[in-house]
Amino acid sequence: MTRTVDLNADMGESFGPWVMGSDAELLKVVTSANIACGFHAGDWDVMAATMKEAVANGTGIGAHPGFPDLQGFGRRRMDLPARSLRNLVRYQLGAARAMAAAEGGTVRHLKLHGMLANMASGDAEMARACYQGALDVDPDIIVMVLAATAQQEAVESLGCAWAGEIFADRAYNDDATLVDRSLPGAVIHDPAQAGRRMARMVAAGAIVTESGLRIPAAVDTICLHGDGPTALAIAQAVRAALEADGVSLRPFKGRTGPVHVA
Amino acid sequence: MTRTVDLNADMGESFGPWVMGSDAELLKVVTSANIACGFHAGDWDVMAATMKEAVANGTGIGAHPGFPDLQGFGRRRMDLPARSLRNLVRYQLGAARAMAAAEGGTVRHLKLHGMLANMASGDAEMARACYQGALDVDPDIIVMVLAATAQQEAVESLGCAWAGEIFADRAYNDDATLVDRSLPGAVIHDPAQAGRRMARMVAAGAIVTESGLRIPAAVDTICLHGDGPTALAIAQAVRAALEADGVSLRPFKGRTGPVHVA
Amino acid sequence: MTRTVDLNADMGESFGPWVMGSDAELLKVVTSANIACGFHAGDWDVMAATMKEAVANGTGIGAHPGFPDLQGFGRRRMDLPARSLRNLVRYQLGAARAMAAAEGGTVRHLKLHGMLANMASGDAEMARACYQGALDVDPDIIVMVLAATAQQEAVESLGCAWAGEIFADRAYNDDATLVDRSLPGAVIHDPAQAGRRMARMVAAGAIVTESGLRIPAAVDTICLHGDGPTALAIAQAVRAALEADGVSLRPFKGRTGPVHVA
Amino acid sequence: MTRTVDLNADMGESFGPWVMGSDAELLKVVTSANIACGFHAGDWDVMAATMKEAVANGTGIGAHPGFPDLQGFGRRRMDLPARSLRNLVRYQLGAARAMAAAEGGTVRHLKLHGMLANMASGDAEMARACYQGALDVDPDIIVMVLAATAQQEAVESLGCAWAGEIFADRAYNDDATLVDRSLPGAVIHDPAQAGRRMARMVAAGAIVTESGLRIPAAVDTICLHGDGPTALAIAQAVRAALEADGVSLRPFKGRTGPVHVA
Repeated sequence: MTRTVDLNADMGESFGPWVMGSDAELLKVVTSANIACGFHAGDWDVMAATMKEAVANGTGIGAHPGFPDLQGFGRRRMDLPARSLRNLVRYQLGAARAMAAAEGGTVRHLKLHGMLANMASGDAEMARACYQGALDVDPDIIVMVLAATAQQEAVESLGCAWAGEIFADRAYNDDATLVDRSLPGAVIHDPAQAGRRMARMVAAGAIVTESGLRIPAAVDTICLHGDGPTALAIAQAVRAALEADGVSLRPFKGRTGPVHVA
Repeated sequence: MTRTVDLNADMGESFGPWVMGSDAELLKVVTSANIACGFHAGDWDVMAATMKEAVANGTGIGAHPGFPDLQGFGRRRMDLPARSLRNLVRYQLGAARAMAAAEGGTVRHLKLHGMLANMASGDAEMARACYQGALDVDPDIIVMVLAATAQQEAVESLGCAWAGEIFADRAYNDDATLVDRSLPGAVIHDPAQAGRRMARMVAAGAIVTESGLRIPAAVDTICLHGDGPTALAIAQAVRAALEADGVSLRPFKGRTGPVHVA
Repeated sequence: MTRTVDLNADMGESFGPWVMGSDAELLKVVTSANIACGFHAGDWDVMAATMKEAVANGTGIGAHPGFPDLQGFGRRRMDLPARSLRNLVRYQLGAARAMAAAEGGTVRHLKLHGMLANMASGDAEMARACYQGALDVDPDIIVMVLAATAQQEAVESLGCAWAGEIFADRAYNDDATLVDRSLPGAVIHDPAQAGRRMARMVAAGAIVTESGLRIPAAVDTICLHGDGPTALAIAQAVRAALEADGVSLRPFKGRTGPVHVA
Repeated sequence: MTRTVDLNADMGESFGPWVMGSDAELLKVVTSANIACGFHAGDWDVMAATMKEAVANGTGIGAHPGFPDLQGFGRRRMDLPARSLRNLVRYQLGAARAMAAAEGGTVRHLKLHGMLANMASGDAEMARACYQGALDVDPDIIVMVLAATAQQEAVESLGCAWAGEIFADRAYNDDATLVDRSLPGAVIHDPAQAGRRMARMVAAGAIVTESGLRIPAAVDTICLHGDGPTALAIAQAVRAALEADGVSLRPFKGRTGPVHVA
């Protein structure tokens, strides 16, 4: 049986006159794009252009809502009540759906951005509030979650369609959390190494930790980065390694319910 | 045959901690609400609350996009290229659709706000850019236009569904433009007078000017205001005068093509 | 010896078309105004108008910087690094100084707003970062602190001029913290009671707690509120009670170093 | 007698995570920096860092206020009343002064940005409103104006200190206006040519037009650009050409009153 996996990256993170990322290059590599919705990055013009390119490339389109914090790029902790989180996601998803539809596309998935995602990965209630906001707008949306975190717990309890994500360039602890960035080896900078790691995890259907432990997980999509000096090289290397391994790269189908480990 | 007309007002113009207007009172009077979309007023929480109330009241829901100018309340001239205007409307309409859908409602119409509306009422190309943005998102949306302006010209040429609007509290010149605010009698402050005027125009299916001239027009909806000392009194008086006249008050149905004068 | 005390309130919290507070009424009561600087409230036009009124009234002018969070009115927790807090305060204080100078006034003091103040009242390092930012711009500025909190600890260690503040409408615990808002009696709504309490604390030069304990404190200024149904009545009652008690009401002079209890 | 001239460029135009320009490289070339103030570009952190670098380089520091339009980078026309323009400049200059002072520097000059500058170069009343705002805050500030435009007319009538600016990379018409960008030769892309042109104009104390006409002008400073593929090369070539010509490069001193042609 052919293994398949999706490759995703954040896109549309330019704003006004400021350009960020190499979206055009990245679109050749990924199968899904998480498109910023104007709160932490992106604006109406950037969104329109990004949607257009994603549609032209046949890329799976996702809304990528974040905190209302442009100067901080949505990377700073903010404390919003659950209702406000829900409304925030509704609003940004709605904007993304319109921008996609106007270019002939459809928003298939939703992925939280930055600190909103970080906080939700450790707080299932918060994750639920955000995801409920998305489901209020589109009950069929596929929620992309960090595999084996409170985000996954949230989608399982909501019973919605979801896809599990692992990182191409981060090392994992034995409890499936990420190795702290301050520790050696936490971030993978070598494209070849990133490619080998991903091929191994996709083949295993599991997160493979630093110690070699295999944690069966929903390995539906791999998170690639679009900026930084080696980001594009890593993305390309991961894609090449998976293709060499006979893995089929295509937009994920959502799954429902708890992970069924093979 | 019973005449029918719609009464509309701007709503959801609060922002964060700042309250504007008397939405709850106004919802008892109007049949359509133009709800701010977060650029010149409104935010995700205000929109959610306003959509909820509008749905509960059975009010016709409209998106009310404006310039990206919160401090100026969208009342200052800004020069945006046509593509950006189109994208701006797409974005705001999309957000409004999501906020409405999440509360069980539907955005039926679109009305431009403030200076965006003013500029578009004198510039059919600009109006077309804005309306095309809305139609890109929802081909069935009903565009509310200032009757007998370049806005109307735009919808007629686009062939989309539309509704014509007249003002409850403004006097008209013989060319169907508004009497300049600096002139005496330009703004009607007396609720009873506003009521009589509207009853007359609705009965006539025409704009009745200061000189008494009748200009046949698409009198589909009457614009009421929500703030100012006499706004609510005028709104209530207009409603009462129309009801006394046997006019049926309900959300407009869109019309298509040029005005057919009876 | 005549006791003197200052009365302060937040002002200039309108934004664009949205009005907040009764600044004109409040200026008749207070001796110091904490003026919003455009991040959580206020804008360049509101600041200019507020500075002008404060100068005309001879009110002591303060800068009131807050988090960059207009929609949340600076009341939501945000996590900014110390350097960014310092820069944020520099920027807002600079803007306030210019707006005051242009109207013939001078910014005498600085008070943190909302959640920025709350967080700093429990975190001396954070308070120091903020206050250092202000002192970098004006070494002579008087920093207004919540008496007996980490804010006070910060100014004592910085060796700068400062003034201690107590609340007119909040009950105190025996450790000088505020009684939690959820508990009965935490917030004083009765103007007469607020007046009596303040007269007692000013006379004592101490915070008087719910249990009757007297905690000697720097009672240099009393915080009054500008909005809410009873705010103005409480402000007026506090002023009247103090005047009846022979207390002289005028802008504080800064103090330096630890509190010397009489 | 040695000719002297100043070289200026816009800086500090990054925002949050988005980098713009090559400030570090440019600081080696220019003698004055126009630093964005947070409305069209720049933020409190970017300003602090830019001020620090400018102080370390001994660069003349200027405030560079713009329209409140981040997404449009202050390049879109906005219509603000004169009072609001004045307040806008006060606010931004005040912020810049504080950020400079905190790093041990001083704001010496003010230059309008983008469309605010464009509009003011054709509208002396508008220019006066802006410059008056600056003078309200600092009567000694040197206002940088586009030589031979309504900006210059404004400073002459205000009687304030000013410096005249010419463009390194733009061709001039015989009435001292810029050749329209759509015409061939309007923008100089060749560094060597830009260097020769500037050496000629500085030597002549005049704007030299396309036809060869010499218009005596206040050639106090030359505007260089910081972004675009050839910007840095042009800046370096202009500096080299002037140095080869024996011109002394240093921050301008302000002049007062009308231009006195030698």
